[in-house]
Amino acid sequence: MKYCFGIDIGGTTVKIGLVSENGEIVTRWEVPTRKGSDPTGLLEDVKVSLENCMAERKLEKTDILGIGMAAPGPVTADGVLHGCVNIGWGDVELKKHAEKVIGISPVCIGNDARVAALGEAYFGAGKGAKSILMVTLGTGVGGGVVPDGHILMGESGVAGEIGHMTIDPYETAVCGCGKKGCLEQYASATGMVRATERFLKEKNTASVLREKDAVSAKDLWDAAKAGDALANEITDFVCDRLGSALANAIYLVDTERIVIGGGVCAAGQFLLNKIEASYNSKVFSHSRNKTFALAELGNDAGIMGAAALILQDAE
Amino acid sequence: MKYCFGIDIGGTTVKIGLVSENGEIVTRWEVPTRKGSDPTGLLEDVKVSLENCMAERKLEKTDILGIGMAAPGPVTADGVLHGCVNIGWGDVELKKHAEKVIGISPVCIGNDARVAALGEAYFGAGKGAKSILMVTLGTGVGGGVVPDGHILMGESGVAGEIGHMTIDPYETAVCGCGKKGCLEQYASATGMVRATERFLKEKNTASVLREKDAVSAKDLWDAAKAGDALANEITDFVCDRLGSALANAIYLVDTERIVIGGGVCAAGQFLLNKIEASYNSKVFSHSRNKTFALAELGNDAGIMGAAALILQDAE
Repeated sequence: MKYCFGIDIGGTTVKIGLVSENGEIVTRWEVPTRKGSDPTGLLEDVKVSLENCMAERKLEKTDILGIGMAAPGPVTADGVLHGCVNIGWGDVELKKHAEKVIGISPVCIGNDARVAALGEAYFGAGKGAKSILMVTLGTGVGGGVVPDGHILMGESGVAGEIGHMTIDPYETAVCGCGKKGCLEQYASATGMVRATERFLKEKNTASVLREKDAVSAKDLWDAAKAGDALANEITDFVCDRLGSALANAIYLVDTERIVIGGGVCAAGQFLLNKIEASYNSKVFSHSRNKTFALAELGNDAGIMGAAALILQDAE
Repeated sequence: MKYCFGIDIGGTTVKIGLVSENGEIVTRWEVPTRKGSDPTGLLEDVKVSLENCMAERKLEKTDILGIGMAAPGPVTADGVLHGCVNIGWGDVELKKHAEKVIGISPVCIGNDARVAALGEAYFGAGKGAKSILMVTLGTGVGGGVVPDGHILMGESGVAGEIGHMTIDPYETAVCGCGKKGCLEQYASATGMVRATERFLKEKNTASVLREKDAVSAKDLWDAAKAGDALANEITDFVCDRLGSALANAIYLVDTERIVIGGGVCAAGQFLLNKIEASYNSKVFSHSRNKTFALAELGNDAGIMGAAALILQDAE
């Protein structure tokens, strides 16, 4: 049996998994993210951690097919990470650095949202589909396209960044990216809270949401599921924007399946049904044959997708 | 020297080219499009026409690497054309049919807009770029994505259909596809004429455009180039919509180059500059490094792209 390591670099912790060649996580653990102006410190921590794991399990370097890494920034095909604000790095040749510091090759790098999409495509909600578009609804809105079992990387490492698609050209509020009317302004957890606050202010309808001091995206979806009329109006508004963005995205990439992930997808099938209904009302008739699914890998999506970066070429 | 045939099926004529393996059109000609409920008649005309060409040039079937075909409808990877309203066909197994009737294999099929993009990628404005997004501004707005030297087909054969991306969710006029606010409603030749009529009605500004009974897209661009203020306001509006759609598309597919084709691109560098400026004002900073180019193959794009369908795998 051969193995690989799947590594998901986050702003607080680095999640690491030893993954077997048949796609099972043998063991997983975390190390704290060592911040700094370059990744050397973090990679040294990872090196020690991987060596401990290999020693415990009596694995040699020849047992390891490679290391996949997911990083929170744009990654280009040459293995360069173009800035990673959360950790403090500028442009770094992460692949080259990691291979040198850790001493295991190859190291394959991908953006975390794209890598999570690859993980779902191989081992999760995308299994059985020829191609997927994944959209992650969390603090922000991320995404990734897997047209044929390999990530669409794009030339600047941003392919799949559906969160910054302009959905409302007349929006006056400014997105984190500096533009106005981005999908993320409506469909991220933060965007949903903002929409809730606006609806509560503009409408007089009674709602359980008025009883809270601060409403979260979870509160909104819980209220909608419980039948609260205003909460349903707000979630319909959010899904209307999301359905429009998904239709626009499908015109470009035309995948077989659309996978919805991220913290907000805890709202489950109720959320998925609303998104699917909105998508079908927005898209032209020829593209109404898509399947929708909720992400299945949860917190393991990064580790599994990073492993898939290695396993996809080892097959 | 080996050859292939590139065939571009249009509503009025079928354009045919004998293309050498190094990508040169040796000879090109046309036959009228024989309409009917299925493609047998048209394919028989093509068969006779190809046989005449081969006899004249003393070519054997073994000299022919295959036949590429561009068709005006959605084409899936299995070689099925899903409806072709202009010619009268429903869903047809065009690849299978053509191989049987013409007796030359393989026949590779693609949608005309996607095939034109492949032609530009291989032989035209996309040469030297690793990936292109092509947008065709004609009677409608079409498009195609070539991420890595092969067309992104999509599961339903519509990948690249940027013309139906929703750009203005508040639009009240209805697009040919049944939806409202599609890019095609602004950036097609027809859409440009519609925008011109609206501006002429709503504004009092003097303009050379007021001297015409019926304004064409060409009139609009000619007036803008000559410095007419209203014409520039209108073309700015059109390019604003187009720049927004291109930014949205690049978030998804992140190609290196954007190629603008179709009849409207006769307006040349002046048009390209406006589109590029609008794109750069709409897109987030990380994606402002794209190169823009005007399509180069003109009426040969279909033939050349169809040939590329064969030559891309023969290389």
